Amino acid sequence: MIPSKYIEDAVNEVASLPGVGRKTALRYVLDLLSRSEPEVERFTKAINELRKNIKLCKICRNISDAEVCGICSNPNRDHALICVVEDIRDVMAIEATHQYKGLYHVLGGKISPMDGIGPSDLHIDSLVERLRLPETKELILALSSTMEGDTTSYFIFKKTDPVLGLTVSTLSRGVAVGDELQYADEVTLGRSIIHRTPYDKARY
Amino acid sequence: MIPSKYIEDAVNEVASLPGVGRKTALRYVLDLLSRSEPEVERFTKAINELRKNIKLCKICRNISDAEVCGICSNPNRDHALICVVEDIRDVMAIEATHQYKGLYHVLGGKISPMDGIGPSDLHIDSLVERLRLPETKELILALSSTMEGDTTSYFIFKKTDPVLGLTVSTLSRGVAVGDELQYADEVTLGRSIIHRTPYDKARY
Repeated sequence: MIPSKYIEDAVNEVASLPGVGRKTALRYVLDLLSRSEPEVERFTKAINELRKNIKLCKICRNISDAEVCGICSNPNRDHALICVVEDIRDVMAIEATHQYKGLYHVLGGKISPMDGIGPSDLHIDSLVERLRLPETKELILALSSTMEGDTTSYFIFKKTDPVLGLTVSTLSRGVAVGDELQYADEVTLGRSIIHRTPYDKARY
Repeated sequence: MIPSKYIEDAVNEVASLPGVGRKTALRYVLDLLSRSEPEVERFTKAINELRKNIKLCKICRNISDAEVCGICSNPNRDHALICVVEDIRDVMAIEATHQYKGLYHVLGGKISPMDGIGPSDLHIDSLVERLRLPETKELILALSSTMEGDTTSYFIFKKTDPVLGLTVSTLSRGVAVGDELQYADEVTLGRSIIHRTPYDKARY
């Protein structure tokens, strides 16, 4: 029993966040309630400003403060490489590795007939246009290795025009760095054996 | 690396909630970003309205939409009983049992010299005033059984005027309903044996 309509409303809204139940929502709401009014306003303003001002980069559909994002407009990045990812968080994860200097293309999801998501719901047409640009040399498919991810990868692969002579690659799969072999699942370990790497290259 | 100042600001604010790290905050923020502008406004409005409109009941310091909360103003509640709790969530927890029909007094914390919280930081003076009211007959100390909770209970017990002839009680402690004895800790089980209950009363 929540003794106030205002708390009830706020808890209902906060509980709509992913993975937040009503108990956690109440904890967040009571914490917000213990703050001063300007602090709460700063909190809600940051969320409102976010929604109002954020754009999708018109080239790669990554989130951006400007029309073209910082990655697409950076002349130091390799414009010959396009890495296809599902989601903005995947861009952040790859950027955090500091191992990739090319461009991205954010699909905004993956093909999933079960959830009613078809190719036309994703940013695939704009990707195909980018593949026709003369500077594009390689397409990297960096989607999850689930049924939906594999379907989407295959769909995009089929869309690439063989005349263009693009290299199409995908992420290597295998036992994670630091993992013990005995705990790896057999599919992953099997892939690691089949796609084994020359020893002198494996250190990089 | 977060590619937008607006996301960065929103993540910083959301990560200030209790138990929310930057990864979870980013997840919440990206979810908010995927909603329509009116939906996000409804979300932030609920939080702003909460902070602006909520009051503390001037009698028991429970949160309330009015000057006096729904419990204190309810003539069907037993005004002879005052249950002292630490926090608003304790009121909700006791109300959820449907076993208590008296009033509450919310201290707003417990005495904790380590955190710099002394008796004057809590709503103890207003409690002592309420204990002097002729209708008050029993004081129930429902604080946590930690060092800080016990200190606070003792401090309040010492403040009660013996001339008033108040009954002062505290929550019973013991093995939880449904728990197996062998897994109960020895302090709790010891208390359960010492404060054993007549069998014919134990069913209620």
